[in-house]
Amino acid sequence: MRPQIVLFGDSITQQSFRSGGWGAALADTYSRKADIINRGYGGYNTRWALFLLHHLFPLVSTKPPVAATVFFGANDAALLGRSSERQRVPIEEYKENLRKIVRHLKECSPTVLIVLITPPPVDEAGRKEYAQSVYGEKADELPERTNEVTRLYAEQCIELAKEMGLCSVDLWSKMQEIEGWQKKFLSDGLHLTPEGNAVVHQEVVRVFNEAWLSAAEMPYDFPHHSEIDGKNPEKAFQQQCL
Amino acid sequence: MRPQIVLFGDSITQQSFRSGGWGAALADTYSRKADIINRGYGGYNTRWALFLLHHLFPLVSTKPPVAATVFFGANDAALLGRSSERQRVPIEEYKENLRKIVRHLKECSPTVLIVLITPPPVDEAGRKEYAQSVYGEKADELPERTNEVTRLYAEQCIELAKEMGLCSVDLWSKMQEIEGWQKKFLSDGLHLTPEGNAVVHQEVVRVFNEAWLSAAEMPYDFPHHSEIDGKNPEKAFQQQCL
Repeated sequence: MRPQIVLFGDSITQQSFRSGGWGAALADTYSRKADIINRGYGGYNTRWALFLLHHLFPLVSTKPPVAATVFFGANDAALLGRSSERQRVPIEEYKENLRKIVRHLKECSPTVLIVLITPPPVDEAGRKEYAQSVYGEKADELPERTNEVTRLYAEQCIELAKEMGLCSVDLWSKMQEIEGWQKKFLSDGLHLTPEGNAVVHQEVVRVFNEAWLSAAEMPYDFPHHSEIDGKNPEKAFQQQCL
Repeated sequence: MRPQIVLFGDSITQQSFRSGGWGAALADTYSRKADIINRGYGGYNTRWALFLLHHLFPLVSTKPPVAATVFFGANDAALLGRSSERQRVPIEEYKENLRKIVRHLKECSPTVLIVLITPPPVDEAGRKEYAQSVYGEKADELPERTNEVTRLYAEQCIELAKEMGLCSVDLWSKMQEIEGWQKKFLSDGLHLTPEGNAVVHQEVVRVFNEAWLSAAEMPYDFPHHSEIDGKNPEKAFQQQCL
């Protein structure tokens, strides 16, 4: 009965139900109003995401999601010739893949509210520290992602949202407005701290509110307990349940 | 495609996706393996929960949950003649209502794994402090719930689990094993702190593992990114997606 909001993305979506995570916070914001469904796939880029589309969002579904966040790019923006090259997707293809994802979601439901989210900024020093903590001396000297290259991907994401008339969150820019974003928002130069998760939560809620999906304006899925008469509970449930 | 695990209960379930919440933690434990669906209804007792049964768990569902936690009693155990009397359900009826919930879930799916969870203990001093912080001098002098009465409800819950051969979590007893449980696990004498949420998460995961629903033994819903060949991604998706 409750509408579904699907979070489609990479590890930053997959991990969003960890303590302080933006997915869990969204589930709490929409408590008793919508179900938040996590479809985050760690390590995935937009090219690999396309394989999942028809399975996650079947065209024949009787109950397509009312909204979806599409949050890729952190892996697509990996650099050629570096340790994460396998995940890299050229920038033009990244944009086209996002377009295919959006078109598919709209084919499932013409009214679906789609929010494109850019990858977060990359803190190259943080990535290096992280690599050294894991691989020690074997860690690569050269970064596998840079903030400048990720910027280009973020720009394409925002440009596509404009072209297609979609809502978007420019996370790459938003986070860098705050001094010390590198450690404040990123735990390993790429993934999010609880504060970084809070930025995503706040921005997604803002965009949902500005569109037509404000939790405050949505009904509870059954009577609030204060509306139930202890001596005559049937009355409160009459309309929906009897 | 992913199996569903439904959390059915009162406010302690409804709030379980707040920061540090047990529902969110469970969603993270079963990340990419099962969807955790929150069906918590703040203030509800088992009598009111019965009105929702056929709506939340339709008998004709093609995809009933593989598991469900049933976590009521904190409101049923409210005292007669006190401020929360409206929510009270007599103890015999509480047990019968739980039995009806279990029977309905089994009618939806004979194989569903049901975990009954007792209400947590009540810290009467904590409840009083909370009431005073909200209502000031107008706060009732007498408690609306006591730990001793809640114990009786917890016992009925455990007894029913034994009678019906179900898994259970005796949260009432478990929490009181730790010195200082009153403030450590309860935020207002009744609802859970992050530490209290961690106890529920740990106990539910333990019971699921002891049954047949261990996350470690469940497959990811699509290839792990490390199994995807960057030059030939089709191969990894062939079995499931092409």
